[in-house]
Amino acid sequence: MINRRNLVGAGLLGAAGAAATFANPKSGEALSGPAIARSRRRFNMVTTWPKGLPGLGRAAERVAEKVLKMSDGLMEIKVFAAGELVPPFESFDAVANGSADIYHGAEYYWTAKSTAFPFFTAVPFGMTAQEIMGWIDHGGGQELWDELSGQFGIKCIQGANTGHQMGGWFRKEIRTLNDFVGLKMRIPGQGGEVLRALGGASISLAGGEIYQALQTGAIDATEWVGPWNDYALGFHREAPYYYGPGFHEPGASLAVGINRSVWDSLIPSEQAILKAACESVNHLSLGEFTYQNSVHLDLLVREHGTQLRSFPDEIVKRMSEAAFDVRAASGKDGIEKRIYESFERSLKLMRGWANVSDGKYYAAREFGK
Amino acid sequence: MINRRNLVGAGLLGAAGAAATFANPKSGEALSGPAIARSRRRFNMVTTWPKGLPGLGRAAERVAEKVLKMSDGLMEIKVFAAGELVPPFESFDAVANGSADIYHGAEYYWTAKSTAFPFFTAVPFGMTAQEIMGWIDHGGGQELWDELSGQFGIKCIQGANTGHQMGGWFRKEIRTLNDFVGLKMRIPGQGGEVLRALGGASISLAGGEIYQALQTGAIDATEWVGPWNDYALGFHREAPYYYGPGFHEPGASLAVGINRSVWDSLIPSEQAILKAACESVNHLSLGEFTYQNSVHLDLLVREHGTQLRSFPDEIVKRMSEAAFDVRAASGKDGIEKRIYESFERSLKLMRGWANVSDGKYYAAREFGK
Repeated sequence: MINRRNLVGAGLLGAAGAAATFANPKSGEALSGPAIARSRRRFNMVTTWPKGLPGLGRAAERVAEKVLKMSDGLMEIKVFAAGELVPPFESFDAVANGSADIYHGAEYYWTAKSTAFPFFTAVPFGMTAQEIMGWIDHGGGQELWDELSGQFGIKCIQGANTGHQMGGWFRKEIRTLNDFVGLKMRIPGQGGEVLRALGGASISLAGGEIYQALQTGAIDATEWVGPWNDYALGFHREAPYYYGPGFHEPGASLAVGINRSVWDSLIPSEQAILKAACESVNHLSLGEFTYQNSVHLDLLVREHGTQLRSFPDEIVKRMSEAAFDVRAASGKDGIEKRIYESFERSLKLMRGWANVSDGKYYAAREFGK
Repeated sequence: MINRRNLVGAGLLGAAGAAATFANPKSGEALSGPAIARSRRRFNMVTTWPKGLPGLGRAAERVAEKVLKMSDGLMEIKVFAAGELVPPFESFDAVANGSADIYHGAEYYWTAKSTAFPFFTAVPFGMTAQEIMGWIDHGGGQELWDELSGQFGIKCIQGANTGHQMGGWFRKEIRTLNDFVGLKMRIPGQGGEVLRALGGASISLAGGEIYQALQTGAIDATEWVGPWNDYALGFHREAPYYYGPGFHEPGASLAVGINRSVWDSLIPSEQAILKAACESVNHLSLGEFTYQNSVHLDLLVREHGTQLRSFPDEIVKRMSEAAFDVRAASGKDGIEKRIYESFERSLKLMRGWANVSDGKYYAAREFGK
């Protein structure tokens, strides 16, 4: 395809002529001016994802690719994997203090900054993917997020969603509440707090450390993401029982955080390009996780002897109660309280809708062949 | 905010100076050249949506707004409501023959062109919103869609999703299969074929005609979209029983169809802007329907005496069997068969995943407070 850019790259004065060349009768009107000239911008994006991580690492790269293409090469985002520019959990500070322009990561990594950040990723027994999209974009979530992140000089946009995350890999079956007592499981964040409420020991390990810990018996169980990402790490070779559904991250939303001064320096078209790139990547990633998790779950069960299990009802009930308490403890005062209350109000409404729509539909579909 | 466009609008030669003015030390580097000049493009978009329709009409407008903003005003899409430029169901032909550039509509409206089109919107007992996103973008659906639409000179992109649609409003409760025999219901497309398989009479009525038909008893029941859109049409005043889940459109995907010559005439940045606008609107609309349906379902039940009901199991089972047959009849030969087979293969995989993830999660969440 002939690219107008090639024709006008040599000089701005060529623009009107090039435009006339491409006038296309089918598209109604292609007028020749006035053309807009924009300058080149470069940005550094740090991420919390290991190099090459499917799904999430790719989401960060896709944001950069889309922005580059939409801006005709004028907005260039250089993506750094975890540790390449700053350690992953320092991404937030790097963007806050301006040593990086943008991060792609999970807001619940910043819980030490505010206990409200997990509500913008995922909380136990909280919202599914489409529900958190509903709350953030249409239920008042974005305004609260802007206020919270604004305190640190950061502007956030949704930039990927993993969909449902699995309950984890267990070396032994879980039959009663007693099986959780003393269980050593790799599960961070609010999910870990729920495990502790059930008498287990939540252990934090980076992705690369989990397999060996499971192999040596240092841990009895681990959650990670879902079949697609879990398959790559090989947990199925050490722990045959794969528990679903997961209660701790029912639809994890990932964020693009932008230094507020950088965001404010963008002209409206540049802001619109960056925002649409993030939103389109959110769309793409939810579909990708849904499809790839399906493919890899099938592989695990058919070819690797993975045993699917569900947590018994009494355990689900106890987890759910603990989750309510853990969420409430995250929103006691100030903006944290307002975020917690907004989230719970929307969650309650959306539970009502799910109970007559998707929730019932998934069950009804299984009446068929 | 100062807009660079204002500074350079008077002449291209001002560009380098303006860029230098806006160099921002926080963003790393803001270089002054070479700037890209693009020409102005205008497009007509016809839609199948009545003027002001929440959700879907708004989705078409949002695509236009985002494209305009991202292109710095250079790509202008004029949106026409149903009937303003062409009758709604002639939108496809208008874009195919080039009398319009773009449509926003539902692919199943073009079933007379090919029985495979409904697979790209929604089919009975088929895919939910995130599942159809998975199939189209990651499971081979887009390539087949390109091939099918390409036969008519059209390029399609997902451009909105309603999420789950309700089973409909009934004047009387449905207790046994016998209650469907002779039932006159407004339900078009493959859903209507399923109703006929159960002995009912499927009736096609435009949105504006349904209320009166329900009021006069010309029909006994109707489906439309979901609580948000249904509320506006007032069906709850005539038919108190609201059935969920819907089996006929578990996550309707709407399409942006572009005249192929127009699409091919766009430079890569223009294609990227249009595609990202559609994808970001898909993201926005799924969240919006999820949230607004929640709000309006709550209103209907709390303030308008709406009675929520589920179809009895024997009816769901019979509907499901009929749906399999209806889907199979849509994919007997040629490209229709390949689309049907690809859809069914992906659906089977994603059913497996839903059964251990979202499907189970929605139920487990209700163990709580």
